[in-house]
Amino acid sequence: MSKEITSRNEDYSQWYNDLVIKGGLADHSGVKGCMVIKPYGFALWENMRDQLDRMFKDTGHVNAYFPLFIPKSFLSREAAHVEGFAKECAVVTHYRLKNDPNGGGVIVDPEAKLEEELIVRPTSETIIWNTYRDWIKSYRDLPLLINQWANVVRWEMRTRLFLRTAEFLWQEGHTAHATAVEAIAETKQMLDVYATFAEEYMALPVIKGVKTESERFAGAVDTYCIEALMQDGKALQAGTSHFLGQNFAKAFDVRFSDKNNQLDYVWATSWGVSTRLIGGLVMAHSDDDGLILPPRIAPLQVVIVPIYKGEERKDALDAKGRELAAAFKAVGISVKYDDNDNSRPGFKFAEYELKGVPVRIAMGLRDLDNNTVEVARRDTKEKTAVPMEGLTGYVRQLLETIQQSMYDKAMAYRDAHITRADTMAEFEKLLDEKGGFVLAHWDGTPATEEAIKEKTKATIRCIPLNNPAEDGKCILTGRPSKQRVLFARAY
Amino acid sequence: MSKEITSRNEDYSQWYNDLVIKGGLADHSGVKGCMVIKPYGFALWENMRDQLDRMFKDTGHVNAYFPLFIPKSFLSREAAHVEGFAKECAVVTHYRLKNDPNGGGVIVDPEAKLEEELIVRPTSETIIWNTYRDWIKSYRDLPLLINQWANVVRWEMRTRLFLRTAEFLWQEGHTAHATAVEAIAETKQMLDVYATFAEEYMALPVIKGVKTESERFAGAVDTYCIEALMQDGKALQAGTSHFLGQNFAKAFDVRFSDKNNQLDYVWATSWGVSTRLIGGLVMAHSDDDGLILPPRIAPLQVVIVPIYKGEERKDALDAKGRELAAAFKAVGISVKYDDNDNSRPGFKFAEYELKGVPVRIAMGLRDLDNNTVEVARRDTKEKTAVPMEGLTGYVRQLLETIQQSMYDKAMAYRDAHITRADTMAEFEKLLDEKGGFVLAHWDGTPATEEAIKEKTKATIRCIPLNNPAEDGKCILTGRPSKQRVLFARAY
Repeated sequence: MSKEITSRNEDYSQWYNDLVIKGGLADHSGVKGCMVIKPYGFALWENMRDQLDRMFKDTGHVNAYFPLFIPKSFLSREAAHVEGFAKECAVVTHYRLKNDPNGGGVIVDPEAKLEEELIVRPTSETIIWNTYRDWIKSYRDLPLLINQWANVVRWEMRTRLFLRTAEFLWQEGHTAHATAVEAIAETKQMLDVYATFAEEYMALPVIKGVKTESERFAGAVDTYCIEALMQDGKALQAGTSHFLGQNFAKAFDVRFSDKNNQLDYVWATSWGVSTRLIGGLVMAHSDDDGLILPPRIAPLQVVIVPIYKGEERKDALDAKGRELAAAFKAVGISVKYDDNDNSRPGFKFAEYELKGVPVRIAMGLRDLDNNTVEVARRDTKEKTAVPMEGLTGYVRQLLETIQQSMYDKAMAYRDAHITRADTMAEFEKLLDEKGGFVLAHWDGTPATEEAIKEKTKATIRCIPLNNPAEDGKCILTGRPSKQRVLFARAY
Repeated sequence: MSKEITSRNEDYSQWYNDLVIKGGLADHSGVKGCMVIKPYGFALWENMRDQLDRMFKDTGHVNAYFPLFIPKSFLSREAAHVEGFAKECAVVTHYRLKNDPNGGGVIVDPEAKLEEELIVRPTSETIIWNTYRDWIKSYRDLPLLINQWANVVRWEMRTRLFLRTAEFLWQEGHTAHATAVEAIAETKQMLDVYATFAEEYMALPVIKGVKTESERFAGAVDTYCIEALMQDGKALQAGTSHFLGQNFAKAFDVRFSDKNNQLDYVWATSWGVSTRLIGGLVMAHSDDDGLILPPRIAPLQVVIVPIYKGEERKDALDAKGRELAAAFKAVGISVKYDDNDNSRPGFKFAEYELKGVPVRIAMGLRDLDNNTVEVARRDTKEKTAVPMEGLTGYVRQLLETIQQSMYDKAMAYRDAHITRADTMAEFEKLLDEKGGFVLAHWDGTPATEEAIKEKTKATIRCIPLNNPAEDGKCILTGRPSKQRVLFARAY
């Protein structure tokens, strides 16, 4: 009756796809590597975006919009940056189609070739710093705290809905500062904003850290990140915040005169999260029956399903259902009263479980007589008979309980999956048998990091912030190490 | 001291550019034809977008997101559609850059050529209807009422900030219906939504009408539009709503089974407004001192400027200023208390006039003693001494008065610039000497429409809805006509 969902044990990857597609979040499109974000998935993104946007504005940022296209020469100005993005760029070379005079249908007009190719932005540092040159003259113009909500394109050969798509939606903050200290403070502040958002809204515990050189953003001095753990024991990078030093200011000649009238290059940060977060949300919380969405960002928090046979007292049920729905709306709880006659309650139950609606309220004739309803939690599937009187207060509290409970569950799972290894044998055994994060010593060289990755498919997710100093030996080379770093296999 | 603005009489076009750039709305970018929307301009767009989004949701629509790229073959499937857009398409042909082995720097990798070229969406009918084929099977799936907020690209050779740019932001609604009647009703409903938004929020009176065949959207059966009038007497198309018939359903084979299990093609609409509206807003209301923004969508509704000499009682002024600002915020009025020490009050006054902040409040030491402030309207420049007690209520009322007054002024101007011509001589004289809309008879043929355009640069903006029947003769050919149509020179 309900849509078939592959179980996690059977095929984790197919389970994920089933939830995303059948749960109404996204779909494949007619364009290779690009997805369609369906209305239910987009409503989820809107809730996430609006909350993040409030947090950005509360920390003094404003939004703006910069061009989709980046001249090839801009991208090339920062050496590490172009090196990092050149391999996955969509390139616009022409600006017109025409009818083939030889009858080959619509073709690219060879006479409409661009003088300089344009890259569809994979990220906007270059076009933005080219603009900041005109906007920043003096220390009075700083700090410049701008964010952009946009689509970006990175040409991926192997794509997965939300997790890795050629086009994705994101926000990218680009700030300019008078000093390195201020820029680093901004970088860390935005990492904290991301961590707060992930934990308090997505119910997703994260580890804050800094990337190693080889995992650093192309053009950054330091990349800070938050790392989350999925139910299959793999890690997911959930957001990054970069201290860019003066790299882009130098590449685009952005200088300001300080209070002493001395010219200096501007200090920069950039930071972003994307629709990838939705993939992490799905994989962190959901079960074999479908999505489980945290109440604070769920597109629909409560659904009310009437239970009736034939037409008996259906009017009374409908009247009460609509009254309850109105009461929920009045206190700011999103709700749907599902009076659709074409599906049976059992089908509706399965459908709302699949869609991860946090609270389901069922109401039959006996409930009507007793002035009660049956309240079911999506996360634990517990059902409780609850008096109609005081129902909105009960549900409001329940939504907060679910939010906290989802976080606690994810946190318990995550904490149970942070282990330590002191030898390669232990390291590989933990990764293979348990998964999750493994704290281990590493000699600090990119070569060793790469060799461990080759051997185990695990990468250094980050060097956790406030990491304790500890003398040890690199699990691969035995060379001395001063701290453990966080390894995992990752998305 | 303040930024130099060219006057309208001197150079209308330069005046417009000055307001947009110096007023902080937008800027040219390093990419030909593409603009940067600056923070103040983007805040204005956010207010417009949020209000439109509420109106779309109130009429039952949901948001989704479809790919940026459209395979060339999709665009080609609807004959009129590709004919309309082929001449201005940005075409992606490659997906990788590389270092030139011959030392030519970063070049497009010739080995990374796409099998099929991708078009950067100029509009999304084709990619969306290719998706709807999978989503629509039965009458139960209809109507499908989806909107998308997105960036689109139309390669324009001659661009102007907001009015005509290669990339612009817009929303595009794409709906699917079981019957032509329903689809036409949707088309008209959304035209009404646009007209309501333009008039009630932008203070911009519009004429609703239907386009002639030659001005129709490429692929539409009928294009409805709203037309506004600018201060230089030129018209601006401010929004369009298209009845697409079954054209796209046929091109993409989207059929549904009706209640009698009969298969039929789906009926479609699409409708959109864009950042172009901001250009119209600027040109309809502003004056030689700067922008004049309608209170309901202004990014900042009230600014409070303290007037002081040296440090005398500056603390008391600041305390009162912040208290007033908090009081405005508490009742939902956006406000800034400008305590910046680096600029003098006169400079600030000029700056906020340039930016079109609807209400400016000045407060000096004497005001402090008298418990009054000076309230200045941006639109009329009237200044009034107002008691601090009850100030928020006064200003709230004043903002509504300004909103209405701006609309009334624009309406009076518009109505004074709708004239009638019965001969070509009259027609040309009116266009040259007065500008505005001219109602005239036309023989109904595209050839005559084109000839009039060639001769006068005026186009038929629309056939107004509820146009009265009137027998007459075409101003160019003398052939019989049954109604007047609305001509103007236009942006």
